[in-house]
Amino acid sequence: MLTNNLIKELNNTLPKSNILSGIEERYVYSIDASNDPYIKSQIPDAVVFVENIEQVQQVVKIANKHMTPIICRGAGTNTVGACVATHGGIILNFSKMNKILEINAENMTARVQPGVIVGDLQKAVEDIGLFYPPDPSNLKVSTIGGSIAQNSAGARCFKYGATKDYVIDMLVVMADGQLIRTGSNTIKNATGYNLGSLFIGSEGTLGIVVEATLKLITKPQTSQVIMAYFDKIEDSIKSVNKIIEKQICPTTIDFMDQNAIQTVEKFYPTGLLCDKESALIIEIDGYETYIEELRKTICNILRENKASSIQFSKNKQEADHIWTARRSSMAACTKLKPNVTTDDVIVPRQNLAKLVKGIQEICKRHNLTVCMVGHVGDGSVHPQIPIDYNDKDEYRHYKIAKSEIYHLTVKLDGIISGEHGIGLEKKAYISKVVEGGALDYMRQIKKIFDPKNILNPYKIF
Amino acid sequence: MLTNNLIKELNNTLPKSNILSGIEERYVYSIDASNDPYIKSQIPDAVVFVENIEQVQQVVKIANKHMTPIICRGAGTNTVGACVATHGGIILNFSKMNKILEINAENMTARVQPGVIVGDLQKAVEDIGLFYPPDPSNLKVSTIGGSIAQNSAGARCFKYGATKDYVIDMLVVMADGQLIRTGSNTIKNATGYNLGSLFIGSEGTLGIVVEATLKLITKPQTSQVIMAYFDKIEDSIKSVNKIIEKQICPTTIDFMDQNAIQTVEKFYPTGLLCDKESALIIEIDGYETYIEELRKTICNILRENKASSIQFSKNKQEADHIWTARRSSMAACTKLKPNVTTDDVIVPRQNLAKLVKGIQEICKRHNLTVCMVGHVGDGSVHPQIPIDYNDKDEYRHYKIAKSEIYHLTVKLDGIISGEHGIGLEKKAYISKVVEGGALDYMRQIKKIFDPKNILNPYKIF
Repeated sequence: MLTNNLIKELNNTLPKSNILSGIEERYVYSIDASNDPYIKSQIPDAVVFVENIEQVQQVVKIANKHMTPIICRGAGTNTVGACVATHGGIILNFSKMNKILEINAENMTARVQPGVIVGDLQKAVEDIGLFYPPDPSNLKVSTIGGSIAQNSAGARCFKYGATKDYVIDMLVVMADGQLIRTGSNTIKNATGYNLGSLFIGSEGTLGIVVEATLKLITKPQTSQVIMAYFDKIEDSIKSVNKIIEKQICPTTIDFMDQNAIQTVEKFYPTGLLCDKESALIIEIDGYETYIEELRKTICNILRENKASSIQFSKNKQEADHIWTARRSSMAACTKLKPNVTTDDVIVPRQNLAKLVKGIQEICKRHNLTVCMVGHVGDGSVHPQIPIDYNDKDEYRHYKIAKSEIYHLTVKLDGIISGEHGIGLEKKAYISKVVEGGALDYMRQIKKIFDPKNILNPYKIF
Repeated sequence: MLTNNLIKELNNTLPKSNILSGIEERYVYSIDASNDPYIKSQIPDAVVFVENIEQVQQVVKIANKHMTPIICRGAGTNTVGACVATHGGIILNFSKMNKILEINAENMTARVQPGVIVGDLQKAVEDIGLFYPPDPSNLKVSTIGGSIAQNSAGARCFKYGATKDYVIDMLVVMADGQLIRTGSNTIKNATGYNLGSLFIGSEGTLGIVVEATLKLITKPQTSQVIMAYFDKIEDSIKSVNKIIEKQICPTTIDFMDQNAIQTVEKFYPTGLLCDKESALIIEIDGYETYIEELRKTICNILRENKASSIQFSKNKQEADHIWTARRSSMAACTKLKPNVTTDDVIVPRQNLAKLVKGIQEICKRHNLTVCMVGHVGDGSVHPQIPIDYNDKDEYRHYKIAKSEIYHLTVKLDGIISGEHGIGLEKKAYISKVVEGGALDYMRQIKKIFDPKNILNPYKIF
């Protein structure tokens, strides 16, 4: 619990309306998109809306003095419990620090506050012919701060990489309230250690990112989406290799398994072919005068490699139509049971078919439905499992299945998170994928950056 | 000096032929490509050729016990004195650990030893339709280990990024001899802190990279090179923006100033136009059926933006011909004076014309010739200054000019190294570009990773 002194100090520092202290208000912030009622999250002691860097520094100094946890929160879309409290403390809400501070077209950079919504930034830069590639599937609500905390990626990672590849500079408030700058306003930097990269993906445990400068690239002139169905999962994955062998680099190579196809079609019918074992969603981008020919080449390769049906977009509406089906998977799953969980495992692509088949087998054995979507180009799978949390037996099976999925992933030379993070949900498993020596160094870095363990404590490890 | 005990232990650990202890042999390793006789490097006490990971661990354990410095060395092409000894110690030579251990076409990864030459890796992966983009200009001799140590980039960085964007996993021997693994065999990774990024660009001061897994991409089907001359530097830089505004993303946008053009043409005549103030070398890559049209579009933009002469390659030989001219700049400079130095400053692109003009003005004032090449797309410039180190007065002016160039760079919101590193040569300036708070955290990280300060000590800061 926060002491009266601490609350007084917060009230002296911030406008009263920026502090939520009522139980109902605080309850809302005890969960994130992981939504598992058995996860060990707590109702925070206060929720504080910050409006500028100085306020963040002041709140951190107060928390540091009182040794009170601070948990940063953007849109709360995290799926692993990374932005909930476990031992009370202050939720630092960045929804008011949501300004795009500068878009520099000549330097091809954007300077933003952490609460900026990813999709809003993308729209703003695309309006002037530039491009911010990372596209987490919740980009209409998720924030840049959250993207940095979790090193978010998305479907376009295959061609364009993840968030870490686009952050060139940050202002970070450290655990003692000090503000540091991690990089420079230049595309390349070889001056000292790459401190910025350490914060990206650190889930708010090392420092609080209060401003970021992002590298932008030129916006592709146009794009097209191809949806190809296969009678066998193995053939869909083999097709990916055949495309790459022809020296073609699509923007995205995404994937749906039969359960995902059928569930989406059942609740959001768009004409998906429910008798197929899998579908690939391949987006290509580039120059207007060439895209049509590139699409034909890819369709030929897909046909030669046993695609049994191929559709493609002729305009933006049709492209959106295909992506809407792919992205409706999670929403469709919620219609099957009261709750739905998503996961995020990744293996070398050569082992992907084995992973997908293995997850299907594990879930079948535990009498669970699993809908699988993923970024097959990256070897990344999101198993979505509809579940009733009130059904204790089902929940027990679900937890065992998860554990088996992680063990299978590790056996296939993979890791338990490619883009969602570890948070609370997977911390028991991190030692399976990060070896002891490396974990020790991570813990020592945590101690240097946050000696009192107040920044999002008890997460990751 | 190494103690007799330490030498005995080295002799017990490694084949005798792997240890160089003669003064003449050791002298060769007291310099790198920085080549400045006044830099405070020393003759090392021993040069040790390692052949496998176990040998590295054994040597490090011995050095750790005796608190003896270890300086790693690949090809010795470093330009800032990052791989020379300052307080004696052991040079760890990786030229025998030069094997490409695996190229996995399906997973699009290569697993390599640190002594692999960058150009050899590129050739090997290109032979099977894959691509490793980072292209430091010395890639025919420089090694992957050195690329990781300095976070090397090169001309293709504009489109494809730097070394840090391609390293997904490493095995690193730590200062106590422990071997740790930093990443995973997957394209994405969100499991704990990004430990790997900390080693990339750390100049061998935090750990010794003994194996790396690199992400590969699909090899572009074809490429073309355009060389465009301008009567004014400002017009060449403005043209770059005009290309980007049309949503075109070239592979490289490189640059030569008039001195560089004239010096190259004088000593390696290839028909360069010596009356022009600058030239752009623009490489484009992509699909065979489109490249010709893309080239025409770019040439039109260049013409509309005051390019006064444009040439382009019709085949690989002609492309190589253009690049040879650009890459001969350093060699041509050596014909002007007994020595030549190169530097590496970078600013936001909007300030590049000011930087180039400013460097020309500084060098003129100090009666120094400067030939400038660089990666204009990135805002990056390499001023090459021919000099006679035996001319004390010239050397004094050279040092003052360097200092003025760094101050100008910082004034233009830039930094003093984009891709070469800090090493010994620039450590006096690092506090001008990395602020105190961030430097403190870097120093604390160094203490954790290398408590006895034996890993390439006295470099960076």
